[in-house]
Amino acid sequence: MIEITGKTKLTGLLGQPVAHSISPAMHNKSFELNHLDYVYLAFDVAPDQLSHAVSFLKETGCVGYNLTMPHKRAIIPYLDELTPAARLAGAVNTVLLRDDGTLLGHTTDGIGFWRSQNEIGYNHIGQTVTLLGTGGAATAIMVQGALDGVKKINVFKRKNSTFEEAQKMIETIRSNTDCELQLLDLANLRLLRECIEESSILINATNVGMEPDIENSIIHDSSLFSSHLLVSDIIYHPRNTKFLQLAQSQGCMTSNGLYMLLYQGAASFKMWTGKEMPTETIKELYFQ
Amino acid sequence: MIEITGKTKLTGLLGQPVAHSISPAMHNKSFELNHLDYVYLAFDVAPDQLSHAVSFLKETGCVGYNLTMPHKRAIIPYLDELTPAARLAGAVNTVLLRDDGTLLGHTTDGIGFWRSQNEIGYNHIGQTVTLLGTGGAATAIMVQGALDGVKKINVFKRKNSTFEEAQKMIETIRSNTDCELQLLDLANLRLLRECIEESSILINATNVGMEPDIENSIIHDSSLFSSHLLVSDIIYHPRNTKFLQLAQSQGCMTSNGLYMLLYQGAASFKMWTGKEMPTETIKELYFQ
Repeated sequence: MIEITGKTKLTGLLGQPVAHSISPAMHNKSFELNHLDYVYLAFDVAPDQLSHAVSFLKETGCVGYNLTMPHKRAIIPYLDELTPAARLAGAVNTVLLRDDGTLLGHTTDGIGFWRSQNEIGYNHIGQTVTLLGTGGAATAIMVQGALDGVKKINVFKRKNSTFEEAQKMIETIRSNTDCELQLLDLANLRLLRECIEESSILINATNVGMEPDIENSIIHDSSLFSSHLLVSDIIYHPRNTKFLQLAQSQGCMTSNGLYMLLYQGAASFKMWTGKEMPTETIKELYFQ
Repeated sequence: MIEITGKTKLTGLLGQPVAHSISPAMHNKSFELNHLDYVYLAFDVAPDQLSHAVSFLKETGCVGYNLTMPHKRAIIPYLDELTPAARLAGAVNTVLLRDDGTLLGHTTDGIGFWRSQNEIGYNHIGQTVTLLGTGGAATAIMVQGALDGVKKINVFKRKNSTFEEAQKMIETIRSNTDCELQLLDLANLRLLRECIEESSILINATNVGMEPDIENSIIHDSSLFSSHLLVSDIIYHPRNTKFLQLAQSQGCMTSNGLYMLLYQGAASFKMWTGKEMPTETIKELYFQ
């Protein structure tokens, strides 16, 4: 670790809970390896205390910070400007205090996801994608995909009370990008099969299959996993979900959500410091 | 340095300015040497932002923090309880978040001063003391001296607009301790000579002689420095003030304010962690 002095620049994470976050280790080690006089702390901030946190961090010149649950949407009213990704996603995971004293909100979750796919040789530009889910992670993935130049995203979700809201959100993304997006009913297996067939990647962005629900999968019919597909799961507890196991049984290449976490952090790191996170070293140390 | 994780406990310093403070280095190195999962940061907090800082640090479970200018008095309304030393001094340099969620205010400045004298072999218990000044440091020294069992403190100050206020403060200390205290006019050299003669220690607790005013001394007449005296200056920029030089010319043992800073920090460290600061190592590293 670097030596902390009165000049050390502060970054950090606001969330609740945060005690088990890997982010402090990842960022502090990266600061050290890059000889940067920064420190990253985890702050346990309750929902009704977010305004105090924002004021304090702004006033003390905190360079920037990450937001996690439950603050990703709640932070927005406190910010001066949003990047297109944050505005379209309606969520912020990274704040930057700019030199003029204003706060910029960005989301690096989608960047993190797509880079994690790029690093294993998958280029998403111009591709057709099938995405399961419309929650925060799914939204970040579709927004960043659309902004990057994904050709088409078939989004599937259960036709429940939030279907209409998701429909509006997808309409907003569609009208602000060149990406074809459509929201479809996950119960329509015929349509799901067709969409997967025309896609080069199938992504589970729901929490179905996450611990302790590890025997569950958002897709049960393994014949839906065509072997030409890259199959990705945003879950990393467990590392190999039932969803990925089914895909592997059909000969698909698979990828879990672990490096999405790494690369969203790397993108935040770049915003605050202007430097690249030494991701290979960080992988070896914290992402095994 | 220790590795910072989401479980690392936060301590720090609130003040303005704080960038050049030695406290982060001193505490962080001590945490490391004691294998304690704590970190100490310096927060630049403007006077009108103190309430945000206090709220944020309390809500995020910050173990405790130091206060420096301009917050030592201003912090008091935010605290649930004060130690006798902090109450009598009307100032707080150390806050502790207790297990029940309440904030305790203490001042370790006086403890730091007296320990720095003890470490060079001077025992203040039962002694008669002559103290020059009634500012924040002077007050901390007289309060802690009175609480520890100093027999008598002759306090000298210029007879200006704050003399009456100082008189009231000293009256409060006197009525709450067993120490004889009196406030006297610094212009009365006959009385000053008598008081020094009956004292075993003479302390400059004014800022006269501090950089850049290094040719100045609160006492000009070197015949006032009787060789039996320990002569202490709370200033440490420069290390050897004109005041101390005059005392040395009369054969007095002298002591500057550097270790007051060290030992006030050690006392705060003890409050937060329950452990002793490794002061000898910290001296070698940061107090040369």
